[in-house]
Amino acid sequence: MIAAMTNANPNIRLDKRDLILTKGSEVMLRRGYHGTGVQEIVQAAGIPKGSFYHYFASKEDFAVHALEFLYAPRLQRYAQALGDRSLSPCQRILTFYGELLNHFRRQERPQYHCFIGSLSFEMAEPSQPIGLQVESILQRSVDILAQCLTEAREAGELNAATDCVELAEFIANAWEGTLMRMKAGANAAPLSVFLHQLERLLTPSP
Amino acid sequence: MIAAMTNANPNIRLDKRDLILTKGSEVMLRRGYHGTGVQEIVQAAGIPKGSFYHYFASKEDFAVHALEFLYAPRLQRYAQALGDRSLSPCQRILTFYGELLNHFRRQERPQYHCFIGSLSFEMAEPSQPIGLQVESILQRSVDILAQCLTEAREAGELNAATDCVELAEFIANAWEGTLMRMKAGANAAPLSVFLHQLERLLTPSP
Repeated sequence: MIAAMTNANPNIRLDKRDLILTKGSEVMLRRGYHGTGVQEIVQAAGIPKGSFYHYFASKEDFAVHALEFLYAPRLQRYAQALGDRSLSPCQRILTFYGELLNHFRRQERPQYHCFIGSLSFEMAEPSQPIGLQVESILQRSVDILAQCLTEAREAGELNAATDCVELAEFIANAWEGTLMRMKAGANAAPLSVFLHQLERLLTPSP
Repeated sequence: MIAAMTNANPNIRLDKRDLILTKGSEVMLRRGYHGTGVQEIVQAAGIPKGSFYHYFASKEDFAVHALEFLYAPRLQRYAQALGDRSLSPCQRILTFYGELLNHFRRQERPQYHCFIGSLSFEMAEPSQPIGLQVESILQRSVDILAQCLTEAREAGELNAATDCVELAEFIANAWEGTLMRMKAGANAAPLSVFLHQLERLLTPSP
């Protein structure tokens, strides 16, 4: 909306950029970063090549912005779910992951397209801007979880000695690995295991 | 060694296949599956294109065999470490991951090339043979860990009610996600978090 106030024709400009980000990231997810050229991105978006360079300096710059474009709304939904005061902090976390499990269970063959996973494995080392963007998104998700775990500790749902930042990081990493296993096996069973172990982790020791 | 008994010139044959697998998987790790053609693989191995098709039916067939080639020795080392009777079962697990943590801590910028991670994110869905191979390797590693956890439970190091197969799967997935985070942030800190949480998971509740 800030951009809309500074551009002559804000809607067209914003829509075209979103279109390139949407269609281009679909291609990149399917073909990998190296397997996708600017040519494939503009073809998927149905725009001339010059338009691409109007919005992005390079393929790398596109990938950095596509990550933000795809994950900012997901992080917002995560923060909303984990800030829902109608549930206790631990219930919010278990409800969020429980709903994701149900979502994937309803699919005959779970489809999960993890842009952050694929870009991270392919590009985090060779490209510092992509590595930093992936790291920033993962860290923001850990921060949201750590905040909720801290509320849980304060509410007595977790032991007083719990290191909430560390526990948040461990759970977030376990979740990423769980998604990877679900993808490899085309099966939602690893998500049930995750949820069950999460319940154990979110129960205070007697 | 079985192959060596059935071929006229066994050593040359085996060496060239290993060479293609070694050099080709390095290229594929760097450029992704889609970004790597048979041409790049044979160039890296310094062999004519025809030789490639003497050993592999296709690029996909190459990827399936490269996964086995790279991971069979790693799984063997994992099984050896987790079968070391000079340590208690839980000590074997903590020692194994502790040594990996030290290995990565010694590097200024942790380098980790995860063929299984990158192939899994890029190819597990579009290619069933690659998905099945990735899944098989992950499952074999879970089996090794589950076996050791079962011994730990029998030795009283874990609660009698522990579901060792489920715990093994959770730990294995958490480990994969931890490696991904280390890769994104070029930092071994996530491994310390993993090891610390692993120590907690491998301590029986009072």
